[in-house]
Amino acid sequence: MSHSKYAIGIDFGTLSGRAVIVDIADGREVAAAVHEYSHGVIDQTLPGTQIPLEPDWALQDPNDYLQVFKQAIPAALAASRVDPADIIGLGIDFTACTLLPTRSDGTPLCALPQWRCNPHAWVKLWKHHAAQAKANHMTAIASQAGFADLLARYGGKISSEWFFPKAWQILDEAPEVYAAADRLIEAADWVVWQLTGVETRNACAAGYKALWSQEQGFPPKDFFEALDPRLVNIVDDKMLRVISPLGARAGGLTPQAAAWTGLKAGTAVAVGNVDAHVSVPAATVTAPGRMVMIMGTSICHMLVGERQESVPGICGVVQDGILPGMPGYEAGQSCVGDHFQWFTETCVPQAYETEARQKDVSLHALLETKAAALRPGESGLLALDWWNGNRSVLVDVDLTGMILGMTLLTRPEEIYRALIEATAYGTRLIIETFQQHNLPVRELIATGGLPDRNKLLMQIFADVTGLPINIPAATQIGALGSAMHGAVAAGAAAGGYDSITQASAHMTRLRPEHYQPNPQHKAIYDRLYAEYAALHDYFGRGQNDVMKRLKDLKAEMRTG
Amino acid sequence: MSHSKYAIGIDFGTLSGRAVIVDIADGREVAAAVHEYSHGVIDQTLPGTQIPLEPDWALQDPNDYLQVFKQAIPAALAASRVDPADIIGLGIDFTACTLLPTRSDGTPLCALPQWRCNPHAWVKLWKHHAAQAKANHMTAIASQAGFADLLARYGGKISSEWFFPKAWQILDEAPEVYAAADRLIEAADWVVWQLTGVETRNACAAGYKALWSQEQGFPPKDFFEALDPRLVNIVDDKMLRVISPLGARAGGLTPQAAAWTGLKAGTAVAVGNVDAHVSVPAATVTAPGRMVMIMGTSICHMLVGERQESVPGICGVVQDGILPGMPGYEAGQSCVGDHFQWFTETCVPQAYETEARQKDVSLHALLETKAAALRPGESGLLALDWWNGNRSVLVDVDLTGMILGMTLLTRPEEIYRALIEATAYGTRLIIETFQQHNLPVRELIATGGLPDRNKLLMQIFADVTGLPINIPAATQIGALGSAMHGAVAAGAAAGGYDSITQASAHMTRLRPEHYQPNPQHKAIYDRLYAEYAALHDYFGRGQNDVMKRLKDLKAEMRTG
Repeated sequence: MSHSKYAIGIDFGTLSGRAVIVDIADGREVAAAVHEYSHGVIDQTLPGTQIPLEPDWALQDPNDYLQVFKQAIPAALAASRVDPADIIGLGIDFTACTLLPTRSDGTPLCALPQWRCNPHAWVKLWKHHAAQAKANHMTAIASQAGFADLLARYGGKISSEWFFPKAWQILDEAPEVYAAADRLIEAADWVVWQLTGVETRNACAAGYKALWSQEQGFPPKDFFEALDPRLVNIVDDKMLRVISPLGARAGGLTPQAAAWTGLKAGTAVAVGNVDAHVSVPAATVTAPGRMVMIMGTSICHMLVGERQESVPGICGVVQDGILPGMPGYEAGQSCVGDHFQWFTETCVPQAYETEARQKDVSLHALLETKAAALRPGESGLLALDWWNGNRSVLVDVDLTGMILGMTLLTRPEEIYRALIEATAYGTRLIIETFQQHNLPVRELIATGGLPDRNKLLMQIFADVTGLPINIPAATQIGALGSAMHGAVAAGAAAGGYDSITQASAHMTRLRPEHYQPNPQHKAIYDRLYAEYAALHDYFGRGQNDVMKRLKDLKAEMRTG
Repeated sequence: MSHSKYAIGIDFGTLSGRAVIVDIADGREVAAAVHEYSHGVIDQTLPGTQIPLEPDWALQDPNDYLQVFKQAIPAALAASRVDPADIIGLGIDFTACTLLPTRSDGTPLCALPQWRCNPHAWVKLWKHHAAQAKANHMTAIASQAGFADLLARYGGKISSEWFFPKAWQILDEAPEVYAAADRLIEAADWVVWQLTGVETRNACAAGYKALWSQEQGFPPKDFFEALDPRLVNIVDDKMLRVISPLGARAGGLTPQAAAWTGLKAGTAVAVGNVDAHVSVPAATVTAPGRMVMIMGTSICHMLVGERQESVPGICGVVQDGILPGMPGYEAGQSCVGDHFQWFTETCVPQAYETEARQKDVSLHALLETKAAALRPGESGLLALDWWNGNRSVLVDVDLTGMILGMTLLTRPEEIYRALIEATAYGTRLIIETFQQHNLPVRELIATGGLPDRNKLLMQIFADVTGLPINIPAATQIGALGSAMHGAVAAGAAAGGYDSITQASAHMTRLRPEHYQPNPQHKAIYDRLYAEYAALHDYFGRGQNDVMKRLKDLKAEMRTG
């Protein structure tokens, strides 16, 4: 029996970073540690100042990321009792687009006293939504003749969460920060730079968040010039045109980073990756036909295809963006767990809270039990799951929630079930859109927080889509995916793997239990889904733009 | 100064009867007393038996009505210290259609031992809804060539609450009861018969509930024959063709009734009336242009016109049905107070209940305060007020509630306000329908329980409709209207009045405080109302019958 080798995956989330050490032979988790960012999400005032932030701003402190290396890795290492020499590779995944301006040596501008009081010098977190006007403007320009093929890869719309809207916001609102920034870089790539001393740009973030494609590279200069003449050289001045494939070795751990982490200098570090996408091979998926759903506050749907197809309303298609050699497709629903949380906090009466307390269960669990006693169609309710807009396939943040069918006998658990069903219809609509564009989906792989928390929801998703749902065995799927990429960066010769497909075959598995669609329920849900689809198009495709007009009026009332 | 004269009004509600003694000179309430029916609404088992009732059944015991005469009138009389000789007239109003089968001498069949165990021998209360199939069948027959003009007076649909569906249900399900019934009679007319020994039929109930019109009388025999050959002679066999005008003297109090009540034998008794309609002159309205709204669990809208117009979707138009010499129009909304009650019981979280308790206010009051702090349009929400179907102008019980515009920041008070606004839009749509058919509405008169309980609702109704709202001074508006009709039955020569218009001029007044529309709010509500009207037509007029299909599926699931 050969000596065991290990890889380490570092998963940077919104509030904390997690280090997980796994056995390369079988993916078994050996040890893990979490470090909570001391500044968390900065959305009120800049740290150490009274400087207020506008609504929709969300910043972070890059030093918090370094603390994950200095705290969580040594803690996991100590708990694992693994010899650091046996840890042959390290991988990173990060929220995206999470962007920061730095000097040419990688020093964040916000770490310099002269910039520390300028909000634009800090990290703009993925959910910094204050660049919406820039995103709208970009979409408008990109729609013009000459650039239309650009938008086709992104479902027709540029999100305010992406790289160039955020960068443009810096230029527009703080040109001095833009000028002082030698580099504008994804946090995923910045932390890899800190570990290796090598600046790289990963294909996943570049493709899904920065309009890059393998065939065409970044958008042409005349596109940037059309946005703002000052942006014309942004790629050459602030970024890199060389984009690194996923699983490639960015470099070896520097002596300084080895000292921070307790790992060996020279340990292989993989190029960065995005948290959702790195999860796909960790969820056992390395081929077309099996869609991964990361189910939490929202759902991210990922699928790889044989060929690149233009699918309306998906968030992005990137060649090699998820797995090498295949186009990776991403779609999403922006309101899932958030939806149920809103409902239980806002719409459930005291009597239910009392009953939950008496039964010593959570309010969610009580509602799930009551809702599970209902048959499909029995509530008479139908909802559109747009409480937080619609990501796929309508790509419209200005859509809002709708529910109909209420009578004076309607109970909270019926509404709760209708909201769950609505999210399942939304997923079915995404699946059918993929299928209409030659991307078959035969099986769903569900991960994230929801599958373990709500079995009713999982069964409803199976019944509504008519597809079996499997669940990966690993619970820290992002960190496992990162560790797998670390093992690939190390390579088979060092005891790792030569491809992510090989890593996935060895290091991942599914749970025995799974969800099968109930054919009777499926037949009823086919009828309900037809109603959902009709209302989806009525309210979502311009037949009646009442939701947008109400939102406009609301904005008018709140400002006027 | 002349010696004061008095009239007494008896208002028979769903759970109790109320006797109110008023001064004929100015309508001032002198004394009142209430008697709760000992059997209330009978909807589980027949009294004194284990005989179960089907869902949708609602019966009453006619003896409970007599107890109102025996208990409430003497109690009011004692409290008033009025000399019975000075009480010159008595009037009655009742829920309708509330129907019972009797012998030729007026004895209710259910009072006879041989019929006491048959549910069909009892009083069918207005909200007995088990004759829906009969109502649907009648509507279908009435739609055929030859009878179409009949339906035009009733907005195109016959309600299960009305006289002939209930009578037909008796015939169909208990032909032996039907055969034994010498008379089928409205409870309003039956109690007048008990007081006077004279069988009369009042024009209001006949017109609004029994398809009678002054011009055409009851429907022709071939209509009843088309329904069921056994019904062909129902009018001649079980009813009266002579219909008495409102305010007419039915007769004088019999010695027996005088003994029950403590009033003088021979006291003038007015023909019966319906609770909503009797309220119109009591609410100061004796001319076109001022619409009365009785606002409680539901809203009943009443208007008199110059000429008879055919208005689609109103519940009924009856010449002289409310006031002599004018057509009376009735419309309605079936879910108003009920709606807010459902919301506060079903959809408001514990935190709000706690806050209400801490502030020592009701949950409704807390919600009203929070909702009042919002501007029109600020919530971004829009609802259709169809939790209990739509009475006017769609006349469709199978429509259901809808709300849209929700986001993850939507608060309970925003939904509460949206539900209030939806009922106001529903009233505006009724008003606009009247106005489109040459029936102008210039002012609203609001009575019932809601105006005193919810000032925000009243202001929203004024803002949405753009009309001033006044409130009658009298709180027991039905009983006052009945007493006024008693004064008319007595006549001016006896110290009463010769017309209800004269009685109204003397005996009613408005409160000083009233609601004026806010022009800024009206302008915003015009925009929101346009959205409401578009969705009203989309869901309510056949463009998308999703609500009906969901209701069908729900019924299928609950029975299947």
